[in-house]
Amino acid sequence: MIKRPSYLLPPLEWVRGYNKGIFASDMLAAVIVTIMLIPQSLAYALLAGLPAEMGLYASILPLIAYALFGTSRTLSVGPVAVVSLMTATAVGKVAQTGSAEYLAAAVAMAMISGLMLLLLGILRFGFLANFLSHPVVSGFITASGIIIALSQARHILGVPGHGDNLPDLIASLLPHLGDTNLVTLVTGCAAILFLFWARSGLKSLLQRMGFENTTAGMVAKAGPVFVILATTLASYAADYSALGVALVGEVPQGLPSLGVPAFDLGLWSELAVSALLITIIGFVESVSVGKTLAAKRRQRINPNQELVALGSANIASAVSGGFPVTGGFSRSVVNFDAGARTPAASILAALGIALTALLLTPVLFYLPKATLAATIIVAVTSLLDFKVIQRAWQYSLSDFIAVVLTIGATLLLGVELGVLAGILASILLHLYKTTRPHIAVVGAVAGTEHFRNVDRHNVITQPNLVSLRVDESLYFANASYLEDQVYSLIADNAGLEHVIIQCTAINEIDMSALEALESINHRLQEQNITLNFSEVKGPVMDALQKTDFLQHLSGEIFLTHHRAVQKLKQDVIEPYII
Amino acid sequence: MIKRPSYLLPPLEWVRGYNKGIFASDMLAAVIVTIMLIPQSLAYALLAGLPAEMGLYASILPLIAYALFGTSRTLSVGPVAVVSLMTATAVGKVAQTGSAEYLAAAVAMAMISGLMLLLLGILRFGFLANFLSHPVVSGFITASGIIIALSQARHILGVPGHGDNLPDLIASLLPHLGDTNLVTLVTGCAAILFLFWARSGLKSLLQRMGFENTTAGMVAKAGPVFVILATTLASYAADYSALGVALVGEVPQGLPSLGVPAFDLGLWSELAVSALLITIIGFVESVSVGKTLAAKRRQRINPNQELVALGSANIASAVSGGFPVTGGFSRSVVNFDAGARTPAASILAALGIALTALLLTPVLFYLPKATLAATIIVAVTSLLDFKVIQRAWQYSLSDFIAVVLTIGATLLLGVELGVLAGILASILLHLYKTTRPHIAVVGAVAGTEHFRNVDRHNVITQPNLVSLRVDESLYFANASYLEDQVYSLIADNAGLEHVIIQCTAINEIDMSALEALESINHRLQEQNITLNFSEVKGPVMDALQKTDFLQHLSGEIFLTHHRAVQKLKQDVIEPYII
Repeated sequence: MIKRPSYLLPPLEWVRGYNKGIFASDMLAAVIVTIMLIPQSLAYALLAGLPAEMGLYASILPLIAYALFGTSRTLSVGPVAVVSLMTATAVGKVAQTGSAEYLAAAVAMAMISGLMLLLLGILRFGFLANFLSHPVVSGFITASGIIIALSQARHILGVPGHGDNLPDLIASLLPHLGDTNLVTLVTGCAAILFLFWARSGLKSLLQRMGFENTTAGMVAKAGPVFVILATTLASYAADYSALGVALVGEVPQGLPSLGVPAFDLGLWSELAVSALLITIIGFVESVSVGKTLAAKRRQRINPNQELVALGSANIASAVSGGFPVTGGFSRSVVNFDAGARTPAASILAALGIALTALLLTPVLFYLPKATLAATIIVAVTSLLDFKVIQRAWQYSLSDFIAVVLTIGATLLLGVELGVLAGILASILLHLYKTTRPHIAVVGAVAGTEHFRNVDRHNVITQPNLVSLRVDESLYFANASYLEDQVYSLIADNAGLEHVIIQCTAINEIDMSALEALESINHRLQEQNITLNFSEVKGPVMDALQKTDFLQHLSGEIFLTHHRAVQKLKQDVIEPYII
Repeated sequence: MIKRPSYLLPPLEWVRGYNKGIFASDMLAAVIVTIMLIPQSLAYALLAGLPAEMGLYASILPLIAYALFGTSRTLSVGPVAVVSLMTATAVGKVAQTGSAEYLAAAVAMAMISGLMLLLLGILRFGFLANFLSHPVVSGFITASGIIIALSQARHILGVPGHGDNLPDLIASLLPHLGDTNLVTLVTGCAAILFLFWARSGLKSLLQRMGFENTTAGMVAKAGPVFVILATTLASYAADYSALGVALVGEVPQGLPSLGVPAFDLGLWSELAVSALLITIIGFVESVSVGKTLAAKRRQRINPNQELVALGSANIASAVSGGFPVTGGFSRSVVNFDAGARTPAASILAALGIALTALLLTPVLFYLPKATLAATIIVAVTSLLDFKVIQRAWQYSLSDFIAVVLTIGATLLLGVELGVLAGILASILLHLYKTTRPHIAVVGAVAGTEHFRNVDRHNVITQPNLVSLRVDESLYFANASYLEDQVYSLIADNAGLEHVIIQCTAINEIDMSALEALESINHRLQEQNITLNFSEVKGPVMDALQKTDFLQHLSGEIFLTHHRAVQKLKQDVIEPYII
């Protein structure tokens, strides 16, 4: 009932059934997406500290590459907010913003990230993305949204400023507040207010004006285009340039020239760690968007093939002078809602952007940078999810620590250290929990063969034996904890003859844990206590049988815990019966 | 039955019962240990690239500090092979061997490592040592032993050489093989041969000569002292110095002067990462020795208190001009076998070494370095454990990968990267296994309430429901894998009405996994399939009850899997019965 996509060349699946009706849907979606992509591409280039045309370049070939190799029917690939910010952070470490080296490094970053994605895909390492937990991703994106919004504040104020974390951004803005350019500020604020209103009010206004529901929604999504047209016109008419308002300025007309970026070992190795982070974040963002959309139409995506597709898209971006791209949430949702049915919609949108680069760039000369900053600020507010903090707090301490630490580290130390801190913290918290597993003493539920925790249920225990349920796989990180717990337990129980470990929750026993069990067995034997196991799982039993542990074991292995208790308690009761 | 030591000041426990008999045992052990420690201390100072007297200094106050704070009765603390090699590697990165800066850095390393140990102990972070699995520790120590032996080859040959990994060591030795000093080579080889023979042949020779069994064993352990005496005498008589043999040379007479090493932020931060590795390795080595010995006398040690004790020992070493120390295997075994009953034996041994530093250093002038190298080479052969590779191969692939990777990385990249690679690999392998948990479809064992894997047992299943047992806690790293597996499974089973997840092996459900379960619930509901859980553990149920997941759940939570199947299968059978 859920289709698996065909791999290697996914278009084979939809090209055969392609017809005029599907084309009409795709074409409509392409027009809408193109209109939306123009301001977005320009804005994210600005966010990445790059010239506007690079935003357009990054929105042509990458869309086509993803359409050829991707498994999502409706994902739209291109520059996105968080990855653009990460690019600015990373490239800013190796070159001065605005310099030729800076542009070259941004292109190289797309190339390196593309190659990494491709390699991970070929190695089928898509599972790596699983190590980013939901709290970490939500926290990271929320904190990035705050940094992005604040980083754009300088364009709204018309003052200098820099920094990739909260303290730096604030410290660099504060001394310049007095230099605020009023025209810039009014333009920026007006744009922000209009865009917020367009989100909520414009659609209902259009509906009241008699537009159809879906049409009204689509037009409302084109809010940024209206703002761009309006402010460009105002800028031209009132000669903003003379008033000290920063404009986008000259944007080269024409298509990007193609060329493979030169391999520069020094630069590439400097960028490698940042590229890996961009790769992982970009992949996780794209896959989560792709999954959400695919689920709505009962389609599925394949994470390893997505790596290949995103890798191709980034290489295509680098080859055409663009910067790192990935599947974006808002653009994909627009594509989906506009009725795109196949990736052909993305190919058509790419043609739309190409036409823009060929014909419309002269118009962009007068566009104030404040307008682009306004579209970014409004766009990122939808990324903010503070409720995740509350949900994590209610649910579990370790999820709460992970989300708060990720947000805090991202805000204070920047995106790279922030996401690293989040990943490390969530892995360490998980490992820490497994180092001190829950070990329950269990007893029989009267009249059944079931055993439950003596602390939570009213159960029957035997004086000569203790039943332990270890609620964790046994491996190196908790092997010695188990030893300590067993020794403490037998120290507290005089008259013990048997220890039975119920293995229902033990999914693995590694070599270190096996050695711990061997010493437990040995130590118990010295005290005339047998060590027994019940309900050992197939794969665990297979592994134990490869060793001589079972030969040395003082007790037995039982299929069920019930049988173990029946057998071992009888040894005591027998003398009274006979 | 197993005593817990009293903490903070463990001597309180044994001082009260101290008497003449215990003192006599301790005194005998102290004499034997002192005789053994003299060559060992000198040799490990040589290995660390430090002057001989620093080996003696590191064997006085640290022993007393450990005796005051340690929880092992018989552990002997001082310079050990692996930690000395790690010190040489780390200090060699910041200063030239033999320079005043090199000595200062080695002392600083003891101080930093001591403070780290103390801090970890106060924070009760002893559990950190659990992340070193047995295969990683065995592999690391074996590879270090090879590097140590090879690093001493230059002293046996009497040629220059350097390097802290196999390729560097070989490359630096090869060009100088022609410059081998024959007298040095003969002395070194003779010493090695004698020491190997002393280990096996000397004891039985002494027994045949009429010595008691234990006495013979003790005397045989003093082999290094005989070698030192013999070669020093030969060196003096034949004027080795004139023959180009490297001698230990002048060793300052007297006790070390005390002083806290100056705090140097630059140096300390350069050494910090290496210090942390030395701290962890030293702690793990010491605790494993301590545990082994304590188990033999039914005593126990406390890992967190051991951190405090080892921290004090290292600070004591730094304050008295020594280098990093830890509990050593061979010296502790000698102390134990010689009959030491309390840490007073170590205090007496410290006095013995102090007397040596005061009186015997002039004798050391003529001692050939080749002799010390020979004692090191023979000592480290007992560290080599190649069988661990074979055992790991037989037991499990991930343990095998961990041990081979640790040995390979240590040999090729040196001790620091080697141990880091081992720790990382074992953690990643463990995590990787948990990302693809074993998910079994289970059925009822006829006539019981037990459920077992349909692939391994002959069990009864129902056409309208599928029972899944997930053999792993559900957390961020496997949440999406579970989703994929459930969707694949329902795609293969037409006519499904219920999915029941048996939660016996699920010890935790984190927030990411909860979100995955929510979308599984949602997706199944769309297809009119209910999602049910059975045998959910107490702590997991507590967490779920804090959320609204149970309100949205399409199915139910059952106390036992048997009840779940009884209830849900009846829904189908009923029409036929009525």
